[in-house]
Amino acid sequence: MMAAHSRSFKIRVPATSANIGPGFDVVGLSLSLYLTLTVTVTVPDSSNPSAPAEWPSISYSGEGANEVPLDAYKNLTTRVALYVLRSSGIPSFPSGLTIHAHNEIPFGRGLGSSGAAVIAGVFLADALGKLGLSQERILDFALMVERHPDNVTAALVGGFVGSYLRELDPSATQAASVPMSEVLPEYPPDSGPDWGRDPPLPPVGIGHYVRFEWAKEIRAVAIIPRFELSTATAREALPQSYSRKDLVFNMQRLAVLTTALSRSPPDPELIYEAMKDRVHQPYRRGLIPGLPEVTSSITPDTHPGLLGICLSGAGPTILALALGGFEAIAEDARKIFREKSIEVDWMVLDVVTEGSSVEET
Amino acid sequence: MMAAHSRSFKIRVPATSANIGPGFDVVGLSLSLYLTLTVTVTVPDSSNPSAPAEWPSISYSGEGANEVPLDAYKNLTTRVALYVLRSSGIPSFPSGLTIHAHNEIPFGRGLGSSGAAVIAGVFLADALGKLGLSQERILDFALMVERHPDNVTAALVGGFVGSYLRELDPSATQAASVPMSEVLPEYPPDSGPDWGRDPPLPPVGIGHYVRFEWAKEIRAVAIIPRFELSTATAREALPQSYSRKDLVFNMQRLAVLTTALSRSPPDPELIYEAMKDRVHQPYRRGLIPGLPEVTSSITPDTHPGLLGICLSGAGPTILALALGGFEAIAEDARKIFREKSIEVDWMVLDVVTEGSSVEET
Repeated sequence: MMAAHSRSFKIRVPATSANIGPGFDVVGLSLSLYLTLTVTVTVPDSSNPSAPAEWPSISYSGEGANEVPLDAYKNLTTRVALYVLRSSGIPSFPSGLTIHAHNEIPFGRGLGSSGAAVIAGVFLADALGKLGLSQERILDFALMVERHPDNVTAALVGGFVGSYLRELDPSATQAASVPMSEVLPEYPPDSGPDWGRDPPLPPVGIGHYVRFEWAKEIRAVAIIPRFELSTATAREALPQSYSRKDLVFNMQRLAVLTTALSRSPPDPELIYEAMKDRVHQPYRRGLIPGLPEVTSSITPDTHPGLLGICLSGAGPTILALALGGFEAIAEDARKIFREKSIEVDWMVLDVVTEGSSVEET
Repeated sequence: MMAAHSRSFKIRVPATSANIGPGFDVVGLSLSLYLTLTVTVTVPDSSNPSAPAEWPSISYSGEGANEVPLDAYKNLTTRVALYVLRSSGIPSFPSGLTIHAHNEIPFGRGLGSSGAAVIAGVFLADALGKLGLSQERILDFALMVERHPDNVTAALVGGFVGSYLRELDPSATQAASVPMSEVLPEYPPDSGPDWGRDPPLPPVGIGHYVRFEWAKEIRAVAIIPRFELSTATAREALPQSYSRKDLVFNMQRLAVLTTALSRSPPDPELIYEAMKDRVHQPYRRGLIPGLPEVTSSITPDTHPGLLGICLSGAGPTILALALGGFEAIAEDARKIFREKSIEVDWMVLDVVTEGSSVEET
């Protein structure tokens, strides 16, 4: 009787914070919290009748462990992986696939948990199918699922990143004419294994990005309220149009900010004002009680070391960039939230320059 | 009889191109064309009845020589200088003042001629009054006159610059509550020497900026149609509001562009798309016949060496950033404009890293 042989690898994807004040849907920052998949593919002994079933066995620990679906057709990471595999002519997962996810990234808090799940899914497919996808192609697949490039690009390449989506000519490709929301539907409860075959291929080169430099002495305090806010809800709060004045306000600050955060020593006066925003934060106040009080009362004057303070992604997490005084910033924010009957957790995170990785183990 | 003694100095201010595609009212680039003032102050022999009159003698050569007013109350540079002097407690120009301006910057073409005139005026006052203004304070004065920071900041500090205007609290300062358009009115024909005294002082620190790096191999081709377009007219063509989609389009490109233009070797694919704009160029097409044809038919594919092409400031000049192939870019643009019965001049300019200067001679 031949012994079963197996292959295993580990995928690691960082948390990310998007927007950083004025950079709505533009910039992202990867942070030192991770989603880690430990993956094993056991090739079963064909003479062994107790071989593993075709569908992957998924387990999950850490943040979100009691809410994330473990069905491979419903779990975001495996759905993305299956989409990428099927786009590459591989109809299903290999037999004997075991995935354990350990997640440090709080769910629905504006720290890029779903962007991380998407990137993990593309890496999973790439490794399982030995597809040899380039980084650019990995980004294309991720952007077919998640149309906002800020989190996924930062999670993929690491560091402080700005990105744009190339304009796609709807007539040029089959895929571009497919509304992105239909690319990766949640599988309905009664769907069979054939559902979701022949998916639209991503056009080549959807996203472009640059990695900005990052002044190493700047760390991030994540102040994380204990409630979830869906990105969809947070988007619905936004207006469809903006005054030219507000547009120029944000563009001026964004242009200054990306370079200002790269310079050592960082200039608090320049950065603090450059982290202000009129595109999303003012409209999300109603969804995050305490936000206006925190951003207006925690300043470089009251909290030496602070560089700027903003909503992380769509919130509710608040991100403070600082050179020191981390605990005072976090504890004073906690007090303000407590007055609104909201408990918060906080942590001091590093900006990590390494992006996602896969490692055979 | 004592001999008259004199003091003389030279002020040099570069041309600038603002916007650079997506950076409307945000970024500026200083270019190798100059407005130069040669200034002499002759202290008259008090016993000499033929001493020069109180009002400065102004002469002008080069671009705009036959349209620029030579009356010190009407000329933009001297009006600004008088505003700065009076703000500093000096009621008038010194006696025996002679100013010769030589200007290489075409008027009303989107190359920063009026921004240069404003900066030259602040430098003139600083040198005449020995005010010792800091660069920051020079910028404050310039921004009281010209509320759009892109050209004046780039002309002042040189290089590739992004800037924002600090939000002013209208209640905090007398000056902030004065509409900027009233700070420096054109003196009416019948105004006496007292008109314009006690001007509003600029608040401190109106503008903030960063200088981006600039990849030295990138040069600029200025394609200059032979007609003037006033900034006011070009602004009237713009809408008051923008869709969120267009706002994100520009912000994504602007964030990428400022860093992409700093990297050697420059990446044409990244930069070309990052220089696209939806905030001002589409609305100014009607004012600049040939603009859509030039920007759509001159591409990195048709013109190797091209990095990107955009309107310079409010136009009508078109700015192409390129590594080579300058003449082909310019001559092909000339052909397109000629089909619209518009003649153009063109020149290849360097991005200069030195800003404005004053030198005693």
